[in-house]
Order: sequence, then structure tokens, then C-alpha cells
Amino acid sequence: MTTRSVDRETRVLEIIETARAKRPRFRDERITLAHGAGGKATQTLIEGLLAPAFGIGELADAGVVENIAITADGFVVKPLRFPGGSIGELAVNGTVNDLAMAGARPLALTLTMILEEGLDADTLRREVEAVARAARKAGVTVVGGDTKVVERGAADQMYLSTMGIGFVDPRAELAPHRIVPGDRVIVSGPIGEHGTAIMLARGEFDLDAELQSDTRSLWPAVEALLQAAGADLHCLRDATRGGVASALNELMRAAGAAALVREADVPTTPIVRAASELLGIDPMYVANEGKLVAFVAPQIAGAALEALRAIEGCERAAVIGEVAAEPPGMVLVETSFGGRRVMDQLVGAPLPRIC
Amino acid sequence: MTTRSVDRETRVLEIIETARAKRPRFRDERITLAHGAGGKATQTLIEGLLAPAFGIGELADAGVVENIAITADGFVVKPLRFPGGSIGELAVNGTVNDLAMAGARPLALTLTMILEEGLDADTLRREVEAVARAARKAGVTVVGGDTKVVERGAADQMYLSTMGIGFVDPRAELAPHRIVPGDRVIVSGPIGEHGTAIMLARGEFDLDAELQSDTRSLWPAVEALLQAAGADLHCLRDATRGGVASALNELMRAAGAAALVREADVPTTPIVRAASELLGIDPMYVANEGKLVAFVAPQIAGAALEALRAIEGCERAAVIGEVAAEPPGMVLVETSFGGRRVMDQLVGAPLPRIC
Repeated sequence: MTTRSVDRETRVLEIIETARAKRPRFRDERITLAHGAGGKATQTLIEGLLAPAFGIGELADAGVVENIAITADGFVVKPLRFPGGSIGELAVNGTVNDLAMAGARPLALTLTMILEEGLDADTLRREVEAVARAARKAGVTVVGGDTKVVERGAADQMYLSTMGIGFVDPRAELAPHRIVPGDRVIVSGPIGEHGTAIMLARGEFDLDAELQSDTRSLWPAVEALLQAAGADLHCLRDATRGGVASALNELMRAAGAAALVREADVPTTPIVRAASELLGIDPMYVANEGKLVAFVAPQIAGAALEALRAIEGCERAAVIGEVAAEPPGMVLVETSFGGRRVMDQLVGAPLPRIC
Repeated sequence: MTTRSVDRETRVLEIIETARAKRPRFRDERITLAHGAGGKATQTLIEGLLAPAFGIGELADAGVVENIAITADGFVVKPLRFPGGSIGELAVNGTVNDLAMAGARPLALTLTMILEEGLDADTLRREVEAVARAARKAGVTVVGGDTKVVERGAADQMYLSTMGIGFVDPRAELAPHRIVPGDRVIVSGPIGEHGTAIMLARGEFDLDAELQSDTRSLWPAVEALLQAAGADLHCLRDATRGGVASALNELMRAAGAAALVREADVPTTPIVRAASELLGIDPMYVANEGKLVAFVAPQIAGAALEALRAIEGCERAAVIGEVAAEPPGMVLVETSFGGRRVMDQLVGAPLPRIC
């Protein structure tokens, strides 16, 4: 989650070389927490092992088969409950958001629970109810699932796993390769709230602040964008693990384009800013659970922003930058002081079990 | 997995009372391994907590929304590898089989992995390849997934979770309520192989035998049955956790009918019989991963059986009994000695982490 300060030209060139290189190979000998953190190690695992094994081409959080979007998600957040939500809500919203990012109206989901022997039944009941409530709110049906129990110590209370399906909206033509130079980059609201709320809930730093996770369904936001921009909406991504920085890096690599972000235009809240400063982290790398990044054609950016701001939870949506042709695969940030730095992919696993 | 010997009339009546009673309530204070074992505790959890919370009516392993069958499965089998398969194969076959039981041709699946920090990369690679291979064999596409990593000790090497979707075959009219008195009960081959293979792999008893798990895709078997019987095929269920006995009990409760099984007609192998005798267990309660139970109208039973036997892995399919009107919700077994006993639901968790 920490950004590495990069001011030497050589370093920039080295990164450009990496970004231009072919698919990474998965060479690690053991799995580390970094493989689950959404950064470079995760990418190596996915692009180097999983995608070739399953013959998956363009990577996204949802696959599309015959106009049906399908997504899968695992949830291992710790603690199970945190200000603004819990693992149950996260499971529903995380799943419907992956569908929404594929331009699909969420329809149904399944829920698989891996429970630890000895789990308090009230905790289970509470999370089942959280799932049911979030599903009603998001307008999806829980159509089934599976429950497995493992011995005491073989899991950490409960892990949830969901799969969702939805029908792709006929107006949606969303894909990383549709991102083109000139596109405006929009974020749907203040960033870094979920990850910061989890850190606060874990008591990892001494900051007495009221901060809630931003967990919510993003389908209403997507629907508003599709209505306003149609095919001029080029790509969507929810900025979960690894934050906005990771979403931008992944998409720029896939699109072979560059993103230029103006730091001063990125919406944040005072609490997230204070917490980030205290820990020396960049909120751009902190997880969100109810924020999206949208790429829209320049002529429609104003209308798209207006439509988005009318949606609950997106009132502070903003254009934070634009897409350029060069250097391909890179994300550059214009700092508030007028400098430019590379916003690289996340390395390591500073905050495991964020979702 | 052990059957309780029941020879007193009072016990039979008591069970009939229970079967006729309304939905169970989930009253347990803590989760135990029994909640994941596929027997009574699992049923209480599902019918008493999950189904009401999610508004799910008739229970099956796959839900159907607008002609799309959807299923979810979790896999926590221990050991990860066993004769005849591994967790990766199990994940694919278990998922496509749930779809097949809904009469749906499996189309695509997603894979979520919860990995333990420190997991050997070769183990991961091997299971990813097992998933890819089983998927190709079953004719399904792995369209995506999710990977989470938890700390050392917070999971047992790896848990897998899948979701599958498929299109319901237009010939299929399958539901527990279609089971009617007179229906013949078919099993697709020798029972108890998966569970016994797992027990052998765990070294839990001293029996030097070559036994392989029966893990395989059952869609070819279902297609053959649909072709032969059409709408006269009334219901299907794969006999996984809790074995054939649990599948029959669940379906008889749902159908409000009785099943009468002739023990002598149930196909088994010498190794499974020997292992069962040694442990004092009944193979009817032992898990299968490539066997189904089918309910067909009597006039078509011969043709259905013949069609089934032409399919690889189903050569020893057999009619093992029939459906009666009374006593509703019960499964009765005619033993080889001519006696009758109740084949009740599984109580407790004799073999956790079987799948």
C-alpha cells in the first residue's frame, strides 16, 4: 500500500521495460500473503498460472458467456465485523459490483460458507442475515449455496465464497481494450474508506475516528453511467484490493495506454487523509468496496459525472485524470506540488485480509 | 455414517412423527463438524436458518433462474490428493454434477481459492492443472475466479469454492415433487467408493486395498437418461455427503413419499464391502462423487437402465427399489435376511472433510 518514491529517470525506464514485457511467469516456491493482496504477486499468479491453465484471455472480475456475466469471490476479511459492515454485506456487494463492472445487472448469487468448528451460532445467524439484507437491497436473489465445516483451528471463524450471475446490459460495451487516449478517468467518490475502516477496526493505529467502510452495491451508479454515456462509457473497474492505483495499473497494462492522474483532484475525506499521513501510506493504494473507476470519452465526461453524482454514495464523484498514449502500461501522478511520479503496482502485502 | 439398528415399533413411529413434523428450527449454540456432514445437523442449518433467510423454497443442489441452473460448492477434502483424484478434480466434478442433477448441461464454472500462506507452489500448480483437466473432460469452461491468501494456520493448505452455470435441457422436468408412488429407484453404479477411498488415504484403518474415488462428471449419464425417459425421468440426485441414504431421505421428505430399498440389489464392490464390515458402517451412508440416484416411471425403468449402463462408469447401474405412498418421508430397507428396517438420516459427523 505504500508507494515507493521514484525520482530517478533510470527507475522509470526500468518500470516501463517491465510493463512492456510479456506475461509474467509464476516462479514462486511458496504462497505468501502477497499473492492475495491484489498487487504484483497476485498478478503473477493470475497471469502466470491461472489464466494460461484455464485459457482465459482478457482478465476481468467477471467472465461473460452468452451474454451472462459470471463472477466469483472469496471473503476472508478480519475482523468479521467492522464499522459500516461485515463479511456478509461485503460478500454480497463485492459480488454484485464485479457483475456491475462488466455492465451486467446483478440477478442472483450463491453463497458457500466454510465454517470453523466451534463458531458461535449467533455470529453465523448475524452474517446470514447480513447477506439476506444486502441481497434485498441490491435486488439479487440468493439461490443456493453450500456449507462446509472444518476442525477447530483449520479456518478463522468463517470464510465466505460467492458467485454471482447477471445479464449484460445491451447498452454496455465495456472492455479494457476500449480505453483510448483522451478518455477521462472518473472515480465515483472519496477513496480509501474501506481499507482505513478495517485498519481502525483492528486497532492497528491510535486514531479515534468515526470512519465507515464504503461497502455498497455499485449497480445504480453503473446504470446511471450507461444511461448517460452508452457506448461512450469504455471501461469500468471497482477499486477494491490494491485501491485505485492497482485498478489503474491493471487496466493500463491491458489497454497498452497511460493514465495521468492529478492528485489534487482525487476526492478523499479528512479522516482517510489523516490516517494515511499517520501511517505514511498513499490512499490511492487503499481498498474501497463501493467505489468505481470509469473511463469515458471526453465529450460525454461532463454528463457522465452529473449522472453519477445524482446517485447515493457518488455525490463526490470527480474526473481525476485522463488517458494518454505514452508511456504504455504506466500510471503517472501529477502531485499537488507540480511534480510527476510513477504510481507503480503494489509490491508486497501490507494489509492482508482486507476483504 | 453408522446406521442405528432399529427393531422396535416405537422407534419407527417416533421417526415417522419427526419426518412429518414441520421445518426444523436451528437452535444450536455452536457450529460442529456435524453441521457440515450432510446429515440431520446440516439439514437443520439449511432448513432452519439459510432457506428462510434467503427465501428459498424447494431445496436442491442447484437453483434455476430463467432456465439457467446455478450451483455453488465448497471443497475442504483432506487429504488434498487421494487415489483416483484430488481436490481440483472433485471441485469440477462436484459442480458439474449439481448442475446435471437439475437437468442442466454444464456450461461454465468459476473457481475461488482460499490458500494458506506457505503453501507449496507445486501443490497449487498441480491442483490448478487438475481443475483445468477435469474441466476439459467435462466440457466446461473455467471463466474466472478469485484468490485469497490467509495467514499460516488460518486454513488447511487450500479450500476451493466453485460456482457453475448450465442451461436446463428442454427435456428435463426434474423435481422432488414429481416423485410418485410406483417410481423405480435407480443407482448408477457401485456405491461408497469415494468415502472409502478417502478413509483409506487417511490411513484410518489397516486395509491394504486398491480403491479409487469414483469422481467423474455425471452429465453423460443424465443425458442418456433424458434421451431414454424424457419427462418420465422424475428426479435426480447425486449421492455425495451422507451417501445414498441421505439423498433418499432428503427426497422422500420433500416428496412426502416413502422409498423401499432392497439391500441385496444395491451394487457394491468387494473392497467397499470389506471396509464397511471392518468399520461397522453401512455403505449406504458413505459418500460418492460419481453416482446418482434416479427416480423413473415404472414403464420406462428398463429402457432407462439400459441407456444408463451404456455410459462409462455406469455399467453396473441397477434398480434398487421403488417409491410407495406410506409412510411419507421415510426410507425403508428390506435386508438380505428378509427383515425391514428404517434407513434414517445420518446423525453426527462420522467422516468430516470428505469433499
